[in-house]
Amino acid sequence: MSQPSLPLTDDNRQDIFAEGETPMTEREMAEARFWFQVLRLRRRIFDDLNTALMAGAGLSVAKFDALAQLYRFRDGLSMSELSAKLKVTNGNVSGLIARLQKDGYVAKSIAPGDRRSFRASITKEGLEIFQTALALHREETSRKLRNIPMDEIDSLTNDLDRISKEISIPETDDSGAQLSRQ
Amino acid sequence: MSQPSLPLTDDNRQDIFAEGETPMTEREMAEARFWFQVLRLRRRIFDDLNTALMAGAGLSVAKFDALAQLYRFRDGLSMSELSAKLKVTNGNVSGLIARLQKDGYVAKSIAPGDRRSFRASITKEGLEIFQTALALHREETSRKLRNIPMDEIDSLTNDLDRISKEISIPETDDSGAQLSRQ
Repeated sequence: MSQPSLPLTDDNRQDIFAEGETPMTEREMAEARFWFQVLRLRRRIFDDLNTALMAGAGLSVAKFDALAQLYRFRDGLSMSELSAKLKVTNGNVSGLIARLQKDGYVAKSIAPGDRRSFRASITKEGLEIFQTALALHREETSRKLRNIPMDEIDSLTNDLDRISKEISIPETDDSGAQLSRQ
Repeated sequence: MSQPSLPLTDDNRQDIFAEGETPMTEREMAEARFWFQVLRLRRRIFDDLNTALMAGAGLSVAKFDALAQLYRFRDGLSMSELSAKLKVTNGNVSGLIARLQKDGYVAKSIAPGDRRSFRASITKEGLEIFQTALALHREETSRKLRNIPMDEIDSLTNDLDRISKEISIPETDDSGAQLSRQ
């Protein structure tokens, strides 16, 4: 290899970015550092959550998220409603629901009024495994954040919320297109 | 549906969590709020980055990330090196590299010393598209963060970095198992 192998973190992305042909401005470097920290933190929590849910309930985070929606909407959801709520493509939702059905956690029925489309709903076994998984999710989140004082968690939550809102403000010259993306 | 349809954000997860059979402690609620804010922010930036890269360079973020590693390691990487660097499964890396090869951005060769395994390397066309995509990535990140003052970006980057480090500290009664996951 032309460079020594880097530690297996997201961190080396930052170096790759700085290596591009056009030099980065100081502001661009700060933005890239920020973005990679968001990715790194998300990854560090996500991977352990996934491992804990798989080990304790046999569910991936993706399956857990789908069950969470069906837990809330007990009358069931169509594939397109699920797709919108989970923000994944229709194709991915279909695969996910098919696997959950095979697990016995989800039942499919034909949507009233539209015989071509399906609704998914959570089964009794699905409700039970979701309760188990929810407890594991809380436990693992607490374990990951155990060293962070509560006031620091709250303060960072507020900062992240503010940033999320600020990045969603429409651009003045492009408000129509921006609004549709909120 | 038993409940009215909620806005299509990650926010309704918080309500689902609070609805579990075991009531959440105040601390658990704060942890869940924090985690969902991380997910929400990551999602809001990620989706627009993906759209911008697809529109301007025909690359998904996943393809872009793979090209970034091959841009850095010009002598090429084996499938397992790529899998470790990108933190995705070997199966997913194989699919990703096959699609990039079809695009003409990646070439595969047999690894010296191990005829059963492949190395991927970036092609001239791959280098060119990566430069285009890197410029788009910088531009879109700047556009998303345009309303955030630089000192706020820096301060939040430091906070996120500190949290990432704090959540990676091994537990005292379980240090061996924890260390292996860093």
